[in-house]
Amino acid sequence: MAYVRKNIHGLNAYVPGEQPSDEDILKLNTNENPFPPTPAVLKAIAGVGPEQLRRYPCPTASEFRAVAANTHGVDSDMVIATNGGDELLRLALTTFCDPLPTGAGVAVAEPSYSLCPVLAAIHDTDLLRIPLGDAFALPGDFAERVLEAGCRLAMVVNPHAPSGRLESLDTLRAVASRLQGRAVLLVDEAYVDFAAEDASALVTRDARDNVLLLRSLSKGYSLAGLRFGYGLAHRDLIAAMDKVRDSYNTDALAQAAATAALASRQVASDNWSRVTTQRTRLATALRQRGWSVLDSHANFLLATPPDATGVQVAQSLYRDLQKHQIFVRYFNAPTLSDKLRITIGTEAQVDALITALDAMGASS
Amino acid sequence: MAYVRKNIHGLNAYVPGEQPSDEDILKLNTNENPFPPTPAVLKAIAGVGPEQLRRYPCPTASEFRAVAANTHGVDSDMVIATNGGDELLRLALTTFCDPLPTGAGVAVAEPSYSLCPVLAAIHDTDLLRIPLGDAFALPGDFAERVLEAGCRLAMVVNPHAPSGRLESLDTLRAVASRLQGRAVLLVDEAYVDFAAEDASALVTRDARDNVLLLRSLSKGYSLAGLRFGYGLAHRDLIAAMDKVRDSYNTDALAQAAATAALASRQVASDNWSRVTTQRTRLATALRQRGWSVLDSHANFLLATPPDATGVQVAQSLYRDLQKHQIFVRYFNAPTLSDKLRITIGTEAQVDALITALDAMGASS
Repeated sequence: MAYVRKNIHGLNAYVPGEQPSDEDILKLNTNENPFPPTPAVLKAIAGVGPEQLRRYPCPTASEFRAVAANTHGVDSDMVIATNGGDELLRLALTTFCDPLPTGAGVAVAEPSYSLCPVLAAIHDTDLLRIPLGDAFALPGDFAERVLEAGCRLAMVVNPHAPSGRLESLDTLRAVASRLQGRAVLLVDEAYVDFAAEDASALVTRDARDNVLLLRSLSKGYSLAGLRFGYGLAHRDLIAAMDKVRDSYNTDALAQAAATAALASRQVASDNWSRVTTQRTRLATALRQRGWSVLDSHANFLLATPPDATGVQVAQSLYRDLQKHQIFVRYFNAPTLSDKLRITIGTEAQVDALITALDAMGASS
Repeated sequence: MAYVRKNIHGLNAYVPGEQPSDEDILKLNTNENPFPPTPAVLKAIAGVGPEQLRRYPCPTASEFRAVAANTHGVDSDMVIATNGGDELLRLALTTFCDPLPTGAGVAVAEPSYSLCPVLAAIHDTDLLRIPLGDAFALPGDFAERVLEAGCRLAMVVNPHAPSGRLESLDTLRAVASRLQGRAVLLVDEAYVDFAAEDASALVTRDARDNVLLLRSLSKGYSLAGLRFGYGLAHRDLIAAMDKVRDSYNTDALAQAAATAALASRQVASDNWSRVTTQRTRLATALRQRGWSVLDSHANFLLATPPDATGVQVAQSLYRDLQKHQIFVRYFNAPTLSDKLRITIGTEAQVDALITALDAMGASS
């Protein structure tokens, strides 16, 4: 059409995971936390009165940023609050990458979060797709390839989605060192609350000027409905992104709820333990039934059903599970089309899944 | 710095109006509605439980869009929900305007919302500033100038901020006709709930393919703290912007509150009448004291204090009012620096302002 930019006109939009409204469905497809948010969050929301709704919110989310800074042992000017982690991804692209025809684009380790290529296409910047290696490992020449292509931003999801693999702090440190002075390393830690290690030391202890960590309250804090994320980075990176974000990007209710959530981190961390316990249990149960399951540091498993010589087994299992009112995620993409990504639920939900799989004969 | 794009590095960020947290301050500086939101909004927020917070929200805000579509007599696919009206401005720029060096940029009637030039600089697109005429009237050659510069988007705030002037539907229709096939006319109607006329007929009745209306719940619905706006346009324009917005751009709480607000429009409209009554009263009181006051169709007045031969009178009055705990808005900009923009408050607030001005001797 006459008015729309070519890159937008030709764009295939991001397709969110299915969000069925039927509450009878066992929803193990979009990595929500199976436990409710802490009561402190509900209390904080109830505490937002008409006067706070009537007025503009704090444009810089200063209370939230103070709590986040305290949580991570940094100053507030090393924190940016965003309308979901997705906004931070967009801000990073807009702040660091030039639109075409320059090559100052973005590198993405693939397969990964399918929103990233969409954001790159919207920003009309060069996208370098770097395939992950065996078991979704970051290739040894990752940083080299980022630099060769002249990318200004490299995005790594860690723990990785959809595999759950965790790259070590040392690996990420080496990548950041190699990119130093030339490109920003964005580590998307949306799932880090379920992992054995995080990369915060790169920002908090090493004080690197080219590392940006993405955190989200969607998974760890059971607040996917709230759309709240934040970035941790050197203050110069934060200051630049702060100019790019919409001026009132987070609202009064979300600020209050997110502040309460982070302030009661201990309550959330009890849920992280419950999730990792169920993760181990589900992995064991699937392996006992002949599935191949990758070790996961996230709140999901990427698992290959037995006898999956082609696409059909995983895809038909995905469909059969839907008939049992159980939603998991299937990706029709290279290296993924023989697998299912299954969100970790409560003990009862894991039981229900295993029972359904057994009823369907999904074992070797 | 090494990592940040030149256009961002050199950017002067948008400066929001002052948001003092002291509730004793009479805040007439950022055009909030002085009345609280309808109780239905508070009820809707209280009705969002832990399960809705835990899950992802509806990515397309479908309930809100259904209510908005019903309100305006259009189909839901002619509505897009956004995280404040500001997001819609950004989406329009991103969807329709190319980054430099092409000239497919944006035209803005000036003076106007100071965020627009900032958004253009972030998107690195060509910005054409078209000065408004006497009494802030849209110049007769506005559309011609947009086309000559090759702009793909023209932004008009109507009722205009900071003057409150309303351009007629016929004027806007003529501009849209002239731009037809070549550029989109964005009419920012953030203040339209306080006006005698709106431009919705361009979308709803004329079904123009190049008109995008911006609506906000911040002013008319007393929900500045919520960050909720929406766009009304031809479905092709909406579909294109829908691909550009962050995939979950509005959260579960905001969707519930905004849906309730729009569904109880009658309650809000009673407040619009109260505001326009006070607007007339304040304008009369100021004129009686020798001020020059523009007719306003918004919830503020742009007024020139008597004897304002230079910047000093308005600016010093602005400062003196702050000492009386009254915040109004002063713009140090051409055609505005001798004026103050004063948000319309409740009857008691208008009284307090007049009393303070009289005590300060701010009359001729």
